[in-house]
Amino acid sequence: MNHFGKLFTVNIFGESHGESVGVVIDGCPAGMPLAVEDFIKDTERRKGGTQKGTTPRQEEDLPLFKSGVFNGKTTGAPLTLLFENKNTRSGDYEKQRAVPRPGHADFVANRKFGGHEDYRGGGHFSGRLTLCLVAAGVVAKKILKGITVDATITSIAGEPDLEKGLQKAIDQKDSVGGIVECRVKGLPLGLGEPFFDSVESLLAHAAFAIPAVRGIEFGTGFKAADMFGVDHNDAIEDQEGKTLTNHAGGIVGGITNGNELVFRIAIKPTSSTPKEQYTLNWETGEKESFSVKGRHDLCIALRVPPVLEAITAFVLADLMLREQKVSRIFS
Amino acid sequence: MNHFGKLFTVNIFGESHGESVGVVIDGCPAGMPLAVEDFIKDTERRKGGTQKGTTPRQEEDLPLFKSGVFNGKTTGAPLTLLFENKNTRSGDYEKQRAVPRPGHADFVANRKFGGHEDYRGGGHFSGRLTLCLVAAGVVAKKILKGITVDATITSIAGEPDLEKGLQKAIDQKDSVGGIVECRVKGLPLGLGEPFFDSVESLLAHAAFAIPAVRGIEFGTGFKAADMFGVDHNDAIEDQEGKTLTNHAGGIVGGITNGNELVFRIAIKPTSSTPKEQYTLNWETGEKESFSVKGRHDLCIALRVPPVLEAITAFVLADLMLREQKVSRIFS
Amino acid sequence: MNHFGKLFTVNIFGESHGESVGVVIDGCPAGMPLAVEDFIKDTERRKGGTQKGTTPRQEEDLPLFKSGVFNGKTTGAPLTLLFENKNTRSGDYEKQRAVPRPGHADFVANRKFGGHEDYRGGGHFSGRLTLCLVAAGVVAKKILKGITVDATITSIAGEPDLEKGLQKAIDQKDSVGGIVECRVKGLPLGLGEPFFDSVESLLAHAAFAIPAVRGIEFGTGFKAADMFGVDHNDAIEDQEGKTLTNHAGGIVGGITNGNELVFRIAIKPTSSTPKEQYTLNWETGEKESFSVKGRHDLCIALRVPPVLEAITAFVLADLMLREQKVSRIFS
Amino acid sequence: MNHFGKLFTVNIFGESHGESVGVVIDGCPAGMPLAVEDFIKDTERRKGGTQKGTTPRQEEDLPLFKSGVFNGKTTGAPLTLLFENKNTRSGDYEKQRAVPRPGHADFVANRKFGGHEDYRGGGHFSGRLTLCLVAAGVVAKKILKGITVDATITSIAGEPDLEKGLQKAIDQKDSVGGIVECRVKGLPLGLGEPFFDSVESLLAHAAFAIPAVRGIEFGTGFKAADMFGVDHNDAIEDQEGKTLTNHAGGIVGGITNGNELVFRIAIKPTSSTPKEQYTLNWETGEKESFSVKGRHDLCIALRVPPVLEAITAFVLADLMLREQKVSRIFS
Repeated sequence: MNHFGKLFTVNIFGESHGESVGVVIDGCPAGMPLAVEDFIKDTERRKGGTQKGTTPRQEEDLPLFKSGVFNGKTTGAPLTLLFENKNTRSGDYEKQRAVPRPGHADFVANRKFGGHEDYRGGGHFSGRLTLCLVAAGVVAKKILKGITVDATITSIAGEPDLEKGLQKAIDQKDSVGGIVECRVKGLPLGLGEPFFDSVESLLAHAAFAIPAVRGIEFGTGFKAADMFGVDHNDAIEDQEGKTLTNHAGGIVGGITNGNELVFRIAIKPTSSTPKEQYTLNWETGEKESFSVKGRHDLCIALRVPPVLEAITAFVLADLMLREQKVSRIFS
Repeated sequence: MNHFGKLFTVNIFGESHGESVGVVIDGCPAGMPLAVEDFIKDTERRKGGTQKGTTPRQEEDLPLFKSGVFNGKTTGAPLTLLFENKNTRSGDYEKQRAVPRPGHADFVANRKFGGHEDYRGGGHFSGRLTLCLVAAGVVAKKILKGITVDATITSIAGEPDLEKGLQKAIDQKDSVGGIVECRVKGLPLGLGEPFFDSVESLLAHAAFAIPAVRGIEFGTGFKAADMFGVDHNDAIEDQEGKTLTNHAGGIVGGITNGNELVFRIAIKPTSSTPKEQYTLNWETGEKESFSVKGRHDLCIALRVPPVLEAITAFVLADLMLREQKVSRIFS
Repeated sequence: MNHFGKLFTVNIFGESHGESVGVVIDGCPAGMPLAVEDFIKDTERRKGGTQKGTTPRQEEDLPLFKSGVFNGKTTGAPLTLLFENKNTRSGDYEKQRAVPRPGHADFVANRKFGGHEDYRGGGHFSGRLTLCLVAAGVVAKKILKGITVDATITSIAGEPDLEKGLQKAIDQKDSVGGIVECRVKGLPLGLGEPFFDSVESLLAHAAFAIPAVRGIEFGTGFKAADMFGVDHNDAIEDQEGKTLTNHAGGIVGGITNGNELVFRIAIKPTSSTPKEQYTLNWETGEKESFSVKGRHDLCIALRVPPVLEAITAFVLADLMLREQKVSRIFS
Repeated sequence: MNHFGKLFTVNIFGESHGESVGVVIDGCPAGMPLAVEDFIKDTERRKGGTQKGTTPRQEEDLPLFKSGVFNGKTTGAPLTLLFENKNTRSGDYEKQRAVPRPGHADFVANRKFGGHEDYRGGGHFSGRLTLCLVAAGVVAKKILKGITVDATITSIAGEPDLEKGLQKAIDQKDSVGGIVECRVKGLPLGLGEPFFDSVESLLAHAAFAIPAVRGIEFGTGFKAADMFGVDHNDAIEDQEGKTLTNHAGGIVGGITNGNELVFRIAIKPTSSTPKEQYTLNWETGEKESFSVKGRHDLCIALRVPPVLEAITAFVLADLMLREQKVSRIFS
């Protein structure tokens, strides 16, 4: 299903080469000023079209407000943002129907949906849907006053020097993966709850909705598994709960502890690579070699930071509403 | 909140040193044979009391069936399993009320719940609650006929040789972390759905309900971020979707692809360590040194495998019901 | 919130005089043929524009498929249906901002949403949103193969003779209420569950989402409260559970019993009446007399049958999926 | 399923003649004083054992606190209340396994759960489960400070004079139905939301979880269907939204309007009646006459008022939390 959240909810829809993609956001506080311009920064960051290693596909990617905005402000009713798909070239994909691309959902979608899936450009499984996430994030960020959510790439193809990592991909004519880190400053202590509403549970749930994510870790993360307790524990320093170190990444017992929230996600190399690959042609039953043509990012991780910020923002917005840290009327 | 699932749901409750811990399981197929004996293997594995590095605390840990079982079988009504807490020594904890243990939820629980939290032994935040998860997993595993769910420790304190890792802890008189891997064989293709009901989203959500988990990764996981696309992509080999490699860990586009499901979680070192540490005494406002006394595991990861299997099993049981791969009447 | 359902979900949005109204439907089986024409019958029935006592407002009311349909069939991805609002005359409403119409949500919406509500023609509270429900119902009815869902008006203004009831309204130049009955034939035994997922609970939940509904009753309903047990009980006649009488309306213990499902809802008189009324002008603080101008139905109940069928259909579609009575692939 | 609510949730479980019945309540504000004594008034009212027309079955019906209470106050963790079943006589029921009682869930439960249902005394479908609802209501009422929730019987067997109605039952040696009305004073304006979270939707959803409820109506209810608009509309009198009349029953557009909340439910005659009835013996396939023996209420409606108050209280508690009208810390 494509619905997430309890008090601040998002319901995304659409296909890469269909009519449109979009999102219905429910539970947004009333009275929040909202203009198309608010979305440009993050939707442009997501496009990444001017960077090395990202696809030249250029949509306008401006939201149409289909409901929930009146006189330039949210009304408290569901907010619907629609993005039309303009620059689609289905022909690129249709010929190759029976040749499922490795790493893509082509094969599983076909089997799961009985052959009825929209197979053009990944259909509903496309990274284009992350535009809907970004849009929801723009709205959510406005709720998080005084809180900053910043995601950055910390390595590409294993290289902390991003230029170098990207150059690897260009040299190899192959796609590469990367790591994206998100940091949130200004969060109150007390968001989240033990067990199934832990902050990690909710963030991880939403983060794995981002295509190509293969892992998530909080604070020191996987390295914590190699550490001693006395080194990993964060000593509490003051009555606000500030800690000397932040191995916990700002969450203890599933609850924010007032320190910076820090987590990272691993992004696999773009499944579409210019390199020749083998797969099964399900009509002929034969192994077939092919190489992906068309517009594709060499490193999809480059486009992930605004998406990761977005899912972080809407998870936190929901928790802030639950904990009554923000009002139902925007202020 | 402490409720998870859509068609097969679990609702856990209890405190470490309160009356009991337990779980209400709803949506379990009717007619499943269920006996106290079914629980012993996994609850014993969870206790880990006979292993080096685990706490000697020995509860009987046998479930009382409070509802939902009749004539030795499930009825289709909610199944309630209760575990009484017998071997509790609250006195260990009460003295230290104002001295929040680093790495534990003591401080955040106090602030979040206005000082009303049950602070004895971590209260509701205790690892003892994982007993409820394990119990739900025992029931869920029975639903997953022909499917095997196996979790094992793959490293302790960074050592693949587990004895060696544990010896590190004993030598250092400190706690250590570890990695637990879960593998599921026999899953059908087609479980899960794109975006918010991706298999990764649901498993990660439930996995982070396990205390001390700091990260989760699927298939090749974080290493995927360092790879080239052509190396990471799994070539499809046959009409059932079997792939030559399994970097994806059995999930593509959020959906099981018929290959083995593989994922790992990182467990931090036990927060309670015999080593001396510093923290804030919130009454005096002074920094205070202390070392944790009482029964504690040096390596909590040792007890995690049955818990990880359990959450995996109930997430998958829910998805199997949704996808109509198992019947509402047990067979 | 505007989201309903578990496996077959609807998320409605929009405002009476905004850009559009619409619905995102998730969980619809893949492979269901779907064309704009499928919607005409029920959306026309809902308009009721040719009947005595209904408003002359004529929208085209044809859905735009924004996602989830490919090659004329559903794909298994979310299905988004959008209805543009064309024939809007906001001017009718804006002048009267501070004069909340009795029986309408004007006043509560203003107070609840801090004055940010879209007040034109009721905004999000408008009966126009029932178009989204009807659209979801069209899709749901297709899932319910071999099951018929029929709603009819059984009285207007207390008159079983509908013409007579309507004439009362015309004679009095006032609006009137009515009763709508829904009957479902062909349902399997076993839908629904005791307590919070009883069929009555789910149908009532959805039915009260229809504006102007003031009551709902199943089978003999309120009259049952006046009866003796021996008269009310339905004697079971055969192994399929057919009963001699059907006072239960096809539901026992919250579960369908294989007999016809029968229930009724009470619709209040249209709040907008040509009659002069009093209300508070919240700017002046004075009592003010006014009479509603513009296009309004004298008897909104006339438009309710397709809406009631719709909510019935999507509640039942969800339950049929849960009980595995229909497949995830349309057939 | 047996779970309800968003921020204040209840999960009920148990069977009439099983080990116990109970409820897990999650989301209760921390710091609420709670003692066994708090439950006595409402659980006693529910038993109704001293009234004419109610069953002499006397359980102690005192809750055991299994989790969530510490030092006499709620902790913020899930609160589990368990009621042991002591006074059970299974023998009354077992003989008649194959003879489903008309009006009871015997037949549908058997078919739905494949014969695995606990059939003793209705099993999970028993009215005994309403004890769990009452218990949740006791907790919820404490949240609703300054708000009074009162349910009373307004007619029995069609008689507003309750003694007379009951005498009818005694004279006829048959069971009878009744009407129960609930009134809530002191509610703030603004609870609930249009469409699927309307106050009517949520209250109706929960009310139909009470066994034997056949209808629900708000304000003037079904009579509204016979009225003219000008008579039904409630003129707004002041800036707080007080209305001259209250035909709406305190809800407009799904939202509380600051006036008294008024609604009624119809209770069918107790299905178990001393009168002779016919049913199918599903083993012999023959029609069989029988009359119900054992302890049964002639008028189950007599026991419903505290149950109706309870579901009203927990629906409203949830909405008050969502609307931030009550704090997460009890005060």
